[in-house]
Amino acid sequence: MEFNIKPLSDSDLQEKLRHKIDTKTKPLGALGTLEALAFQIGNIQNTLEPAISNPTIIVFAGDHGIAKEGMVNPYPQEVTTQMVYNFIQGGAAINIFSNTHGIDLKIVDAGVNHSFENKLPLIDAKIDFGTKNYRIEPAMTEDQCLSAIEKGAKLVATAHANGVNTIGFGEMGIGNTSSAALLMTYFTNTPIEDCVGAGTGLNDKGIGNKIKILTEVLNKHCPKNTIDALATYGGFETAMIVGGILKAAELEMVILIDGFIVTSALLVAKKIAPSVTDYCIFAHTSNEKGHTKMLAHLNASPLLHLNMRLGEGTGAAIAVPLLRASVDFLNHMASFKSAGVSTKNE
Amino acid sequence: MEFNIKPLSDSDLQEKLRHKIDTKTKPLGALGTLEALAFQIGNIQNTLEPAISNPTIIVFAGDHGIAKEGMVNPYPQEVTTQMVYNFIQGGAAINIFSNTHGIDLKIVDAGVNHSFENKLPLIDAKIDFGTKNYRIEPAMTEDQCLSAIEKGAKLVATAHANGVNTIGFGEMGIGNTSSAALLMTYFTNTPIEDCVGAGTGLNDKGIGNKIKILTEVLNKHCPKNTIDALATYGGFETAMIVGGILKAAELEMVILIDGFIVTSALLVAKKIAPSVTDYCIFAHTSNEKGHTKMLAHLNASPLLHLNMRLGEGTGAAIAVPLLRASVDFLNHMASFKSAGVSTKNE
Repeated sequence: MEFNIKPLSDSDLQEKLRHKIDTKTKPLGALGTLEALAFQIGNIQNTLEPAISNPTIIVFAGDHGIAKEGMVNPYPQEVTTQMVYNFIQGGAAINIFSNTHGIDLKIVDAGVNHSFENKLPLIDAKIDFGTKNYRIEPAMTEDQCLSAIEKGAKLVATAHANGVNTIGFGEMGIGNTSSAALLMTYFTNTPIEDCVGAGTGLNDKGIGNKIKILTEVLNKHCPKNTIDALATYGGFETAMIVGGILKAAELEMVILIDGFIVTSALLVAKKIAPSVTDYCIFAHTSNEKGHTKMLAHLNASPLLHLNMRLGEGTGAAIAVPLLRASVDFLNHMASFKSAGVSTKNE
Repeated sequence: MEFNIKPLSDSDLQEKLRHKIDTKTKPLGALGTLEALAFQIGNIQNTLEPAISNPTIIVFAGDHGIAKEGMVNPYPQEVTTQMVYNFIQGGAAINIFSNTHGIDLKIVDAGVNHSFENKLPLIDAKIDFGTKNYRIEPAMTEDQCLSAIEKGAKLVATAHANGVNTIGFGEMGIGNTSSAALLMTYFTNTPIEDCVGAGTGLNDKGIGNKIKILTEVLNKHCPKNTIDALATYGGFETAMIVGGILKAAELEMVILIDGFIVTSALLVAKKIAPSVTDYCIFAHTSNEKGHTKMLAHLNASPLLHLNMRLGEGTGAAIAVPLLRASVDFLNHMASFKSAGVSTKNE
């Protein structure tokens, strides 16, 4: 498992992109963050005429051993399975937003605790019927973890081969905010109390209990490296997203980072390949408590702040129109010269 | 000139909307601001199944007497005319974003200092060849002001008759941040220093000079009422937007409020009819200095914070996809019951 990710540092291209942006018919810098977006996407695609082609969101679903106990999650574990059926039937938020914004959506069984019928519009990448309970043992074996990373990477490579140049990731897995909080603590040295939030809707007592349990989990394990940490605390969906992010960066794709879970996967990916964030656009700030600090750790400034905390890739989906707007202004807006507009008096 | 604007207070509908939102397959409140949006749009349209139909942005262009002096504006006055041609030719940012997001765009000559050829795709609502210089005399007469309000209202009524239920406003007018700053001071009692920003790109010295000039202007005039204040300090484009906003609220349309100039028009409209803001969705926070305080005065929480400060309605345009996403989830997302998803353990 090796990913060859090129840092973005073509200063000649960057100067040309800056000049192209600055000569558009608008005051200097007046399109703010959209200018930064156009600049980054041009850099990623190594062109002055970038495009958002076949934007796709891959939603990975997996179950978590810890969730069987029902002590960190207000919804029962079965909801993971039920929500996969909801995705398949087109009724979940991510289905709606993907339709609204012309995004292709793929649903992946990364390791749900259910045997799905054949012939469903569901990609079978199942590692196991949920992870083990990390209160007792590591969530997965190293082999399972590497296999999940590889499967995530392969799915992205397939999308790329089909003309996708912009990819977002989503997830579904009852219990996976606990997993993300553990990964956050491990990779950012943030105290677990600051990493744990309400998830799908714990009250204060529930959050206190979640912190207590996850503290015990942290005391129990001593991961020896990055992959071991991911195997110990991760979900199958998280590991697949790690692989997906790394492969997407290797393939020079635009990567839309969603909320708390997906960003936890990015922490792992960045540990493996620090340049990966050059290819990442941070879609939104989730209302899940730890996300703001996680983003600060990554020096990330997300596009949207809409108090959402749903997962599924919904934050990534609603950011896609901003990406389109940014490349469109870069490609199609007139320059002062082409439009015959006077420039500023100095 | 009278506008009959109904406050939104149907508690039966509101309860049904809340219930519909809360039974969707997602944790309670997990779609954050998009839920508030869906709720507001349902309220405005008086339905549990709202729609964003033929969203339209009307850009009003007008010139300002003050701008001839070149003391408050780094770009020459001619840029207003040049930008109108740019709009007509499709090269400005608002053209691009309207294309990207499927928004109908209308360009209106509210009072540009230029005689445009006939047969251009430009709506002629010209009041005069620019306002007077308010350093010397009021920007317009009361008759001109009322005529501008009426023309703005009529254009919105026409759009509504053509099936438009969602409207945004944009503006172009070299010097119009000065006009907006004066209106802001008058209607919010904010000191002029806090209302004045860089506009299209003044440096600190230029901003200091702009404050000095506008302070003199404030000392010179003593408007006797709302219309007189608008006539004294306003632009023709601002007055037309005031009329457009009021008519749109009367017609129960969704109104997208753009940046500093459009929000200054809303201050006037709200003075005339306080309920008007029930129909307003605040698209974005502009980087123009006074906008944040202006929004706070209106208790407004805009959707987007992208450091933009371009005007033209560009903030409104890029917010349209969020409106679509919000009504789409309300209309099409499955409920826990319809999808057979378990609800939260209590």
